[in-house]
Amino acid sequence: MTEITATFEKTFEALIEAKKYTAIREILNTLRPADIAIILQNVDETKLPLLFRLLPKETAAEAFVEMESDEQELLIRSFSDAELKEVVDELYVDDAVDIVEEMPANVVKRILKSADPDMRKMINEILKYPDDSAGSIMTTEYVELRPDLTAEDAIKRIRRTGIDKETIYTCYVTDANRKLIGALTLKDILLAEDDTLIGDIMHEDTVSVTTLDDQEEAAKSLSKYDLNAIPVVDKEGRLVGIITVDDAIDVIEEETTEDIEKMAAITPTDKPYLKLSPFEIWKSRIPWLMLLMVSATFTGMIISGFEDALATTVVLTAFIPMLMDTGGNSGSQASVTVIRSLSIGDIEWSDVGSVLWKELRVASMCAATLGVVVFGKLQLVDRLLLNNPAVTVSVSIVVAITLMITIIAAKLVGCSLPMLAKKLGFDPAVMASPFITTIVDALSLIIYFAIAKAVLHI
Amino acid sequence: MTEITATFEKTFEALIEAKKYTAIREILNTLRPADIAIILQNVDETKLPLLFRLLPKETAAEAFVEMESDEQELLIRSFSDAELKEVVDELYVDDAVDIVEEMPANVVKRILKSADPDMRKMINEILKYPDDSAGSIMTTEYVELRPDLTAEDAIKRIRRTGIDKETIYTCYVTDANRKLIGALTLKDILLAEDDTLIGDIMHEDTVSVTTLDDQEEAAKSLSKYDLNAIPVVDKEGRLVGIITVDDAIDVIEEETTEDIEKMAAITPTDKPYLKLSPFEIWKSRIPWLMLLMVSATFTGMIISGFEDALATTVVLTAFIPMLMDTGGNSGSQASVTVIRSLSIGDIEWSDVGSVLWKELRVASMCAATLGVVVFGKLQLVDRLLLNNPAVTVSVSIVVAITLMITIIAAKLVGCSLPMLAKKLGFDPAVMASPFITTIVDALSLIIYFAIAKAVLHI
Repeated sequence: MTEITATFEKTFEALIEAKKYTAIREILNTLRPADIAIILQNVDETKLPLLFRLLPKETAAEAFVEMESDEQELLIRSFSDAELKEVVDELYVDDAVDIVEEMPANVVKRILKSADPDMRKMINEILKYPDDSAGSIMTTEYVELRPDLTAEDAIKRIRRTGIDKETIYTCYVTDANRKLIGALTLKDILLAEDDTLIGDIMHEDTVSVTTLDDQEEAAKSLSKYDLNAIPVVDKEGRLVGIITVDDAIDVIEEETTEDIEKMAAITPTDKPYLKLSPFEIWKSRIPWLMLLMVSATFTGMIISGFEDALATTVVLTAFIPMLMDTGGNSGSQASVTVIRSLSIGDIEWSDVGSVLWKELRVASMCAATLGVVVFGKLQLVDRLLLNNPAVTVSVSIVVAITLMITIIAAKLVGCSLPMLAKKLGFDPAVMASPFITTIVDALSLIIYFAIAKAVLHI
Repeated sequence: MTEITATFEKTFEALIEAKKYTAIREILNTLRPADIAIILQNVDETKLPLLFRLLPKETAAEAFVEMESDEQELLIRSFSDAELKEVVDELYVDDAVDIVEEMPANVVKRILKSADPDMRKMINEILKYPDDSAGSIMTTEYVELRPDLTAEDAIKRIRRTGIDKETIYTCYVTDANRKLIGALTLKDILLAEDDTLIGDIMHEDTVSVTTLDDQEEAAKSLSKYDLNAIPVVDKEGRLVGIITVDDAIDVIEEETTEDIEKMAAITPTDKPYLKLSPFEIWKSRIPWLMLLMVSATFTGMIISGFEDALATTVVLTAFIPMLMDTGGNSGSQASVTVIRSLSIGDIEWSDVGSVLWKELRVASMCAATLGVVVFGKLQLVDRLLLNNPAVTVSVSIVVAITLMITIIAAKLVGCSLPMLAKKLGFDPAVMASPFITTIVDALSLIIYFAIAKAVLHI
């Protein structure tokens, strides 16, 4: 397998420059479609249509599917009607839908015009389903069998019609009303005796999703039950499509990226980073920065309210960053753990009791450890070693106790807010580090000043 | 499909309490193995062996595979030798290896003793590979064909031997020295004429990984090329196993969880949250909290160095949390985006220039927006509305300029550190929010005090 490296890309560019098209064609022939897509995306836009035409027909369509929508649009615009038809004819219907969804109206019209009537009907069918629904990512090209077929006939049927199906390894059994009544794998059929009836060897209790279910739910079911594909039914239980495992992996990856972005206070977009303009990135980041900045000014107001006391005991100010950061880190450790566990299904709302109890014990252990360390460090390093007389035993006690209470509060807030969000139907991922840091900051300062007042009488 | 709900679990517990074993068996028969595993994990430990014996043999083994290692160990200890053999005989070799890896030595001995000699040999073979290597998650049960076989004979061979193979949908072609020379799908074979030679229809340029490759690389290749399985070869190119798509999905999920944990300053563990003891959680969190707490004291030292000036202009203290938080959030937006993009392969080291240039433009736009907002807010809200005379125009300018420089510095640090880590062979995920926050905190305070000194002459 030829690996794409920086050296390889340089060589390739040099060949384009020198117009060595025969050599380029030879190189492209050794590459897999996914790699061709990566290579072609890095070449100069004006050269793209030319290079694309060097590919054999089938490889061309497969590489086309793997490209980003910008390049796809550019290519479609450069295609003649005949060329467009050649590519569209090779596409699976779910890939065609993905492409159509990203194109401007006039390009969509050309694609639909060049698709054959069956394909056009299927594309239009799938386009009706809302974004992120199971219906929107399914394919309508699957193997459908009747229960009264024999294994031998089923194999014949698959051999005759399988070429256009995205997967032939799971076959779905429907009754006369097209209702899904079972499923079986090609392995089941191949390993059965020739005259066995499909209805006798099918699995009746088939996992399925409905067209309007969330695509993430569909992907998770498929992964949970180790399936190669999951059937999609309409409200009446009629089979309308299937979702294959390769698309499910893409959904899981996309949804995870969205979760991670939300956890970092970014509004998710569905384009890869390098394809986003600075303005689009700005739009996805600025609302959260603004919101969190405004919330952080409340923390400032807490400090203002304590200005006079701070003026008399200035040394207290020096510990504010350490208290805030450790609180924030403790909280985000808990919140991120809980958000991820919720997302992969390790915990749910009914576990809230055991999560709180577990975090309380973890927090107490963390608090005890860090409380002792910080007290020792203040007395040994700051007071004795650095000779700072302002760091008295009382001040050290105030800092250590504040730190301990902050850690416990931070972990409890950090684990409970995402669970509460989930229970109330919000996205737990939004309740991650930045949000919790802001709350914990205010909390830690209130605790700090209250304890300082009590212990230091200021 | 029976859904597992809280209500369902309650009913189930009541039935166990009342010893209605016939009803329980009926219910278990309607469930899928993955769901049975979830249910059985929630029942009382002493009841587990009893309930497990209610399951039909094949379902029992499949449910066993889906359980956590604690329950598996408990069950194995309760099994007679005959019962253990029944379960082990039903296992695929890669599942057996997963189980063996988690068990104490005496349990492993019993498992190996009850496995038949072929199985034992395969288990021992796979156990030799290091953790997280492709070899350690592969299965040695795959379909291997010779190039001179006809399609018809290949199908016959698959029908005869396929029952024990984890997948029969991708078949691997080897030469007389067992070297991997090609692969083809069952679809290719089924759709070919009966007398076509396997060697003529196989794909010669097969993607493969070696036994010592990282399991994550194997999973990514499989997902990139939309494969059902990826072959694993030894150093000499001889086929030794395959990794199937369901295991690849699990690897992707595990590795993502690890990345997310590292980003939140947690040392990854491979157990689910609810299975971890508070002590284990403490161990995974405390080193980072400690390290970051100690680093944060340097931030405190910066404040100490500026104590006298702060005492004269106390109002400056109130803006410290806002500056630190906004800097931290700006930095983690950039770092998390870059870490995720690196991990899913959207960017690599060679993109460092365009990433820096993009982040510089985004940062400038964010800085301009927030700088204006904060200046307006200080002058309109703090000074006019809240009537705080200490918030002069000069102070507002100092805060706004510091904020702007901090945001730009934070985004540049945030995007470059993970890329640098990757380049140097470290894990970029460690360079996430908590780490960057600590750096940015110190940076923002140094900038703050430098500008304050210059503008306010303090």
